[in-house]
This record gives sequence, structure tokens and C-alpha cells, in this order.
Amino acid sequence: MALIVQKFGGTSVGSPERIQNVARRVARWKAMGHQIVVVPSAMSGETNRLIGLAKALQPEPDARELDVVASTGEQVTIGLLSMALMSIGVKAKSYTGAQVRVMTDSAFTKARIVHIDDERLRKDLAQGIVPVVAGFQGIDANGNITTLGRGGSDTSAVALAAVLKADECQIYTDVDGVYTTDPRIVEGARRLKTITFEEMLEMASLGSKVLQIRSVEFAGKYKVRLRVLSSFEDDGDGTLITFEEDERMEQAVISGIAFNRDEAKITVMGVPDRPGIAYAILGPVADANIDVDMIIQNSGVDGLTDFSFTVHRNEFAKAMEIVKKVNAHIGAKNAVGDNKICKISMVGVGMRSHVGIASQMFRTLAEEGINIQMISTSEIKISVVVDEKYLELAVRVLHNAFGLDKPGK
Amino acid sequence: MALIVQKFGGTSVGSPERIQNVARRVARWKAMGHQIVVVPSAMSGETNRLIGLAKALQPEPDARELDVVASTGEQVTIGLLSMALMSIGVKAKSYTGAQVRVMTDSAFTKARIVHIDDERLRKDLAQGIVPVVAGFQGIDANGNITTLGRGGSDTSAVALAAVLKADECQIYTDVDGVYTTDPRIVEGARRLKTITFEEMLEMASLGSKVLQIRSVEFAGKYKVRLRVLSSFEDDGDGTLITFEEDERMEQAVISGIAFNRDEAKITVMGVPDRPGIAYAILGPVADANIDVDMIIQNSGVDGLTDFSFTVHRNEFAKAMEIVKKVNAHIGAKNAVGDNKICKISMVGVGMRSHVGIASQMFRTLAEEGINIQMISTSEIKISVVVDEKYLELAVRVLHNAFGLDKPGK
Repeated sequence: MALIVQKFGGTSVGSPERIQNVARRVARWKAMGHQIVVVPSAMSGETNRLIGLAKALQPEPDARELDVVASTGEQVTIGLLSMALMSIGVKAKSYTGAQVRVMTDSAFTKARIVHIDDERLRKDLAQGIVPVVAGFQGIDANGNITTLGRGGSDTSAVALAAVLKADECQIYTDVDGVYTTDPRIVEGARRLKTITFEEMLEMASLGSKVLQIRSVEFAGKYKVRLRVLSSFEDDGDGTLITFEEDERMEQAVISGIAFNRDEAKITVMGVPDRPGIAYAILGPVADANIDVDMIIQNSGVDGLTDFSFTVHRNEFAKAMEIVKKVNAHIGAKNAVGDNKICKISMVGVGMRSHVGIASQMFRTLAEEGINIQMISTSEIKISVVVDEKYLELAVRVLHNAFGLDKPGK
Repeated sequence: MALIVQKFGGTSVGSPERIQNVARRVARWKAMGHQIVVVPSAMSGETNRLIGLAKALQPEPDARELDVVASTGEQVTIGLLSMALMSIGVKAKSYTGAQVRVMTDSAFTKARIVHIDDERLRKDLAQGIVPVVAGFQGIDANGNITTLGRGGSDTSAVALAAVLKADECQIYTDVDGVYTTDPRIVEGARRLKTITFEEMLEMASLGSKVLQIRSVEFAGKYKVRLRVLSSFEDDGDGTLITFEEDERMEQAVISGIAFNRDEAKITVMGVPDRPGIAYAILGPVADANIDVDMIIQNSGVDGLTDFSFTVHRNEFAKAMEIVKKVNAHIGAKNAVGDNKICKISMVGVGMRSHVGIASQMFRTLAEEGINIQMISTSEIKISVVVDEKYLELAVRVLHNAFGLDKPGK
């Protein structure tokens, strides 16, 4: 008998019929003798509907009141799912964040969980009841309703699993696991049986949007065994996110290929190579609340260097404007930008101990005549920026070159 | 400076634009120097939508879970209305029933208020903040969410007014007060400036559905000054519900004429006139959960009597069936029914001290050739049952005969 926390996303509970499917799935796990805690999101579309109403009344809604409104989405689902469970003979009981006592700080719309009481839930579990806990929400020390921000239900589920010392936290979503890359682009993309926590972090932040990154961090911190599964398919074990590298075979060097075509690059050329220059350029960009992803600076020649960074495409124009103003001050030659780029990243903990991954990647791209514009590396990741027209081709040839289509993990 | 609790019904907050109108109205009262507590209902249609979702998952929804779901309607409105107030410069703060601590018993879907904490609200009022409190909901001693049942927001508002010792509880609705009768039937129908609490009780239960009857009872018990006003018209003082008869002029004998065409009558003829017969007939009807309104039994002749009662038309067939079965047991002659009837009631506390009201009513109807089928009276009300085709005519001639179209109250 295991204690399992099961989280169901908005699409999985998007209609009464789908809620019934979720109930049947929970009932099957229960019938196997497991203790189950369920954490549903709001029905798909509901959170956006509520935020739309709020914005109609206050263009920048008061954060406390926005949480009061937005948290109702999950409150509806916990009630409905509890009813669905009862209607097929499973004892169930719903809890809002306030009722469990999911204590958070007071950072409305992006609160962080401070503490969770497990007393009521344990009492229910001991009595064979399935507690259905609202994700995404909590209360602060003054009893104000808070929400954890977008994707916060994943974090709620992981936090509950940590507090209850659950054997596993299962995240049901509209994909059936983590893939070596996007199956829509590479036919041979394969579902990974396992992925390490660190790889998952890189994959998530790089655009393979399966899990909310904060929940993965949380799972890593509290060593929660996390599994991604499909809400819509009954078979398959999904992808297990592990914390120990030796839980899996060593031969797999690369786990997957992530990509992102939402970015644009800006290069400031002929920058005087002296201390404070990076800050002089990026400080004003950050002040304008523009997120920067990759940052690259080469060692210079003749006291001049080129400085490049990437931003979200939507903020490209704004960032260019800022950079051009800065240029005059710092005496740079010129600033050029390109918003027709994409970023491709190979991720794998095996990379640490295997030399030659980078060179194999670069050779593979060169053989197809794909020019690499930027390169950035970390312990378990190599990212390159190329012309966006090469995205599909590059991902396919890399996927093939590294044998990701062959069953291994 | 007065402390005023203002309750706005579902139609009044049915869209973002209407919520903005409510906010502007609250702001005007605030600008006059009053302290305001606002109690909004759910946006019109929302509670039905939520109950529909619940029934899709459990045909007879679990009461606890239904309250979890249904209470979200008001939670959305308090957040939205607070935002609307802030956006026009009025300090506001929303509270769910749980946050105020509206303590109720545990009778889910029809809970009764046991106690309300006023501490937070008083603190806000002292700071010039408008507390926006969710109507219809509370929590029980175990922290479960409860609702007060349909129309419960009126009760919430009155209860808050009682606890805060408010100077007035204003119920904003889609009518601008209580009328002498339905203006759609009698052109000369007039809005009453005042109506006594007891008259209001009779008017409400008789089909002039302006206020939920429980809230009127509650107001009577705690002597809350209650006023019904229109959400959509800015002028007019609505109708004040008073508790002392001498607050108004004595000449008005009749306050209004209520009517109801939802009933059907059943007469059991030739019933042996002996103890236990009323119970023998009505017991099985009550067991079938059929509500009975009027009950009339004449003193009999020759040991036989006729026994009549009225039920809702929807339950007429079911009730007739039951009565026919009972007849055989009790040795009654026959049972006849009629679902083409209507009930007309004249209401007025003045009736107590004025003889001749009944006879004037009967004469007026007789002059129009309207046959009276049943009569029932109370201290401040006379009800008659007549053929439904006479409804409009009867109400019009009575309205005229008793001078209800002439300004008085």
C-alpha cells in the first residue's frame, strides 16, 4: 500500500465528463489498496475567465482581491470531483487551501508555501477517505486568501506529497510523459522512462513545458518522487523524475533536446572591454522589466568586444530601443538585432562525464550547413542559437545523431 | 453619519458594468459621510450554473460539497466589487463568510447563522474602509463551508446589520419597493412608503416576492430597520419596513393585495366528522413531501363534513392520487379537485381594529359576479380562492374599493 498524491491539470478536469474520468482513475488506484490525495486545478479556461472579469473592473487588479476571485476556480473543482467520487462509491472530502491550512507568505498572486498542516488529511486517509485538496491556493497568517501563481497546482501537489511523506506525486497532464524532444517535430521522439531532477529543470525552463519549474525545484528540495502521466491514456507509466543518477543505466548521455522560438538576440558591437560594461548594458534592460535569457561575451581584441544577449520576442523592440540609447553613453560602435532565431538545447546529466558531446553537436549541425550564431553551455546542457528556419532540421538531425530514437532509458 | 448595510442582488451585480454601477452608488453614500458595509449576491445565473455542474456529477449532490461549489459565486463578486470600488478611489476589502467568521450550524445548503464576529469589520469601518462581505455563506464549528439556502444573502445582510447595530439595512433589488399590488395587473398600484414587518411577512409569503421571508423574520427578531430599494433607479426612498404600527398614519387599513395562481384545491366530500380525520387525510400528503397551504374544514351536518386544502399545482395530480386512496379507508364520499383557481389576499395590520373589511371584500367581489370558493383569515389577512379567470378583475376592483391607489402611506 502506498500513499500517492495525484494532481490533475485544468484540461483533465475541463468538463463534467472529464471530471468523471478522473474520478474513475482515482477509484482504480484506491481499489488497488493505495491511499490517495487528489489535487485538481481549475477547469480549463476558468482562471482566464475570472482574471478577465477582474481586469474589466480594475485594469491592474488589486492583488489581494484577484486572489479572492481566482481561487474560486479550484474551489469549484474540489467540490465537483468529490461529488464525482462519491457517486461511484468512493468516500471523498474536499478542502480549500484555508481548510487544510496551507500557510503561505502574503505575496498575493505569487505566494510561497510556508507550512502545511497534515492533521486533517491524515485523519481522512486513516478512515479510507480521499481528501480532494484545492491546488494553487493557501492563506497567509492573517487569514487572507493567497494564490501561488500560474501552474501553482503542481507546487501544491508536490508540497502536500512532501508533508505527507507520500511515496509518489503523480502529475497528470495532457502529455503522457517527458519526451526526448517534441514529437510534433521529430517522428522518432521517445517517451523517457526516467529523467533526473536536474535534466527536468533544464528541459522545463527550455520550453518542454510539462511541469512548472517551481514544483520541480520543490520536489528536488524535499526529495519527492515525481511522475508525469497522461490524464487521457490509461496505460503507460509516464516519466519518473529521479534524484539519483545511478537509478538509471549509464549509457544514455543525452536525455533530450529542447527548443524555443520565442527569443530574439541583440548584439552590441565594439564595446570597450572594461569593467562595468555588462551592467551598463543590462542594467537599463532589467530596469524596464525585460527578462534576459542567454548572455554571451567573448574575450576582446584591441580593447573592444562584442556583447550579445537574448530576450523574449515580444520585448525585442523595447530592448533594442534601450540598448541604442545606452550605446551612446558607453561608446559602443553599433547594436544589431535579430528576431528570426531559435534556441536549441541538448540536455543530459551524462554530459558531465562524456567529452565530445559538444563537438559532435557542432559537427552534426555543420554537416547540414546550419550556421551557429551563439553558444552557451552549463554542466548538463549545451544551447545554440541558429536561424529559426533551421529549427526542425536541426532538432531532427541531432535527435538522430545522438540515437535518442533508440529505446534505452 | 450612519452605519448602513447595503445588500445587492444577483441582477444588480450581473455584469462588470452593473458592478461598476453598484460601486458608484456605494461611493455616493460613502461621500455623504456614512459608514457602509456591502453584501453582494452572486452574479445572476452563476449559482444556477454551479448547481448545474454539481448535478451533472451527482444527481443529488452531497450537501457539504454543494456548498463548497455554490459559495464560490459570492466569493467572485466580493473580489470584483472591491476592485470596482478601489478603481474609483474607495478603500474596500472583501471577506468570505469564513473570513468574517459568520458562524452557522452544520445544516449544509440551509444553514442558520449562530454568531458573527464584528471585530474585523469594525476595525475596517473605523479606518474608512468599505468591507465587502459575501452573502449566503458561513462556516460551521469545524471550518466547513456552509450556505444559507436560496435568498440567503438577504439574511446575511440583516444578520450583519443586527450584529453591527447598523442604522439601516438596505436591500437593493430589481423592484424599487413594495407595492400595494402587482403594477402589471393594476395600473394604479402604488409603492408603499412603509409597511409593517408583519404585513411584509404576509406579503412575501403570499407571492409578492421582494424579500426572502427568513430575512424579514430575522429583521423582526433583531429589530433591524429594513428598506427595499431599486438598484437601477437613483431616486426614491423605496419602502421602509417598520416594527411599530404607530410609525405610520392610522387611516390605512389595508396595505396591499397579494395573489398566487400556483395553487390547486382538493376537496374531500362527505367525510365522517370525527377526531383524527384531518390527520388521516393530510398525513399521507405530508409523507409524500407535498406542501399544503390553505386548510379549511367546516362544522359538519349529520356527522359528515367537507374538508378542503390547497397544494402547489405541480403536485396536484400526485396529491389527488393519494387522497383517493385515503378516501377508501376513511369512508369519505368523494374527492374533487380544481387546478384552475387563484388565491387573493388582502393584507393590513389596520384590519385588526377595523370591522367590516371582510364584508366589504366579499361584497365587492359579489358585485362583479365573482364566486368565492374558499375563505381563510388571520389577524392581518383575508384570503379567498376564486376561479383563476377572475384574478385580474378581482385584484383591480379590490384595489379600487379599498382606495389603495390613493397616496396615503
